[in-house]
Amino acid sequence: MEKPKAVVLVSGGLDSTTCLAMARARGFELYALTLFYGQRHRVELKAARKVARVYGVKKHLELEVPLAAIGGSALTDSRIKVPKQRSPREMGKGIPPTYVPARNTVFLSLALAWAETLGSQDIFIGVNALDYSGYPDCRPEFIRAFERLARLATRKGVEGKWKLKIHTPLLRMSKSQIIKAGLKLGIRYGLTHSCYDPLPKGRPCGRCDSCLLRAKGFREAGRKDPLGA
Amino acid sequence: MEKPKAVVLVSGGLDSTTCLAMARARGFELYALTLFYGQRHRVELKAARKVARVYGVKKHLELEVPLAAIGGSALTDSRIKVPKQRSPREMGKGIPPTYVPARNTVFLSLALAWAETLGSQDIFIGVNALDYSGYPDCRPEFIRAFERLARLATRKGVEGKWKLKIHTPLLRMSKSQIIKAGLKLGIRYGLTHSCYDPLPKGRPCGRCDSCLLRAKGFREAGRKDPLGA
Repeated sequence: MEKPKAVVLVSGGLDSTTCLAMARARGFELYALTLFYGQRHRVELKAARKVARVYGVKKHLELEVPLAAIGGSALTDSRIKVPKQRSPREMGKGIPPTYVPARNTVFLSLALAWAETLGSQDIFIGVNALDYSGYPDCRPEFIRAFERLARLATRKGVEGKWKLKIHTPLLRMSKSQIIKAGLKLGIRYGLTHSCYDPLPKGRPCGRCDSCLLRAKGFREAGRKDPLGA
Repeated sequence: MEKPKAVVLVSGGLDSTTCLAMARARGFELYALTLFYGQRHRVELKAARKVARVYGVKKHLELEVPLAAIGGSALTDSRIKVPKQRSPREMGKGIPPTYVPARNTVFLSLALAWAETLGSQDIFIGVNALDYSGYPDCRPEFIRAFERLARLATRKGVEGKWKLKIHTPLLRMSKSQIIKAGLKLGIRYGLTHSCYDPLPKGRPCGRCDSCLLRAKGFREAGRKDPLGA
């Protein structure tokens, strides 16, 4: 029997890599979608390529999305600083300047366009609503609203041939649970990249929310991060 | 008092130009957003620039969106033919190959990103559910679902400071009503471009759905199309 196709959003980070491995474990044929959006941490993209190769994706589509021209985020506008050394309590309060306006809406719409074109009704996205930075577009109510929208927005949805599902296997996992699940699937986390604001040569800064959440995850999982950050 | 800002999707076509003029008439400061998506009718973009200039928009943002890399439409894939000489009855049946997967979802997400960054809570889009080609993402239920999504997707929506509205002034108008309303607002329709599959030098083919709907609109409005198609 032919494997069903899934479009998986792959940034090259820890979460999306785990998500890709999970989609493979569930028996999908993988179509990896990586979006460049003028982010500071463009080094992610090298990681995304390695990850896609290792996981034997059927196709890896890399697209440029002009979010930097729109701005409004520390990740796309160098004049806005990436916050450093925030405590878990600080991270729990409000939405930080690394929020990119409408990013996951834009990402999921492009994933939707590709899924419809491929004839896939499964999209995977590694959003997480537990150990995360408080982004509104990582919450379950956002994902469900997008799913409803997708069915109304598309030819296949309207023709009733199709019931798009957005899979969010990491949604309610802690970072350490994600890491443990990923290690069981054989993920080599040394291939991935998480830092928002990398040092020269792409080394992680160790101080942004993303680095801190990653470090906490490895610590709580009782494992060593192969990136050694 | 400062005018409220509105993001207006402007393709350079008849509908979006009318929509822009309506947003201006309603007292908004205009932020025009034009999206290039590898469409056959790239000549639209010249029209969009002229239109934006004539309407004195505060800012005109032109962005490239990689929908052609995704394909799946006669407008972005030269191997798929644009249907010609279809009767109104044929147009009323199903969704034609000029449908671009998830296009309006992608367009509205980028408009949303810009609106949030600008601090605007008003987006205008010239969709029309009457004299149209049967696209799922031109229907009122799609627009309402996007509005709901937008409030969940954004920082401003979640913080409750903001209630994004998607204005669709043309939604229930016939093409001739749109043209009459536009002429009252002083629109010079000779600046606009509607054809999906232009001839050399950008002249309209006169035979695609878009040309036929435009011609029917001018005929029913009892006016002459200045494009002379």
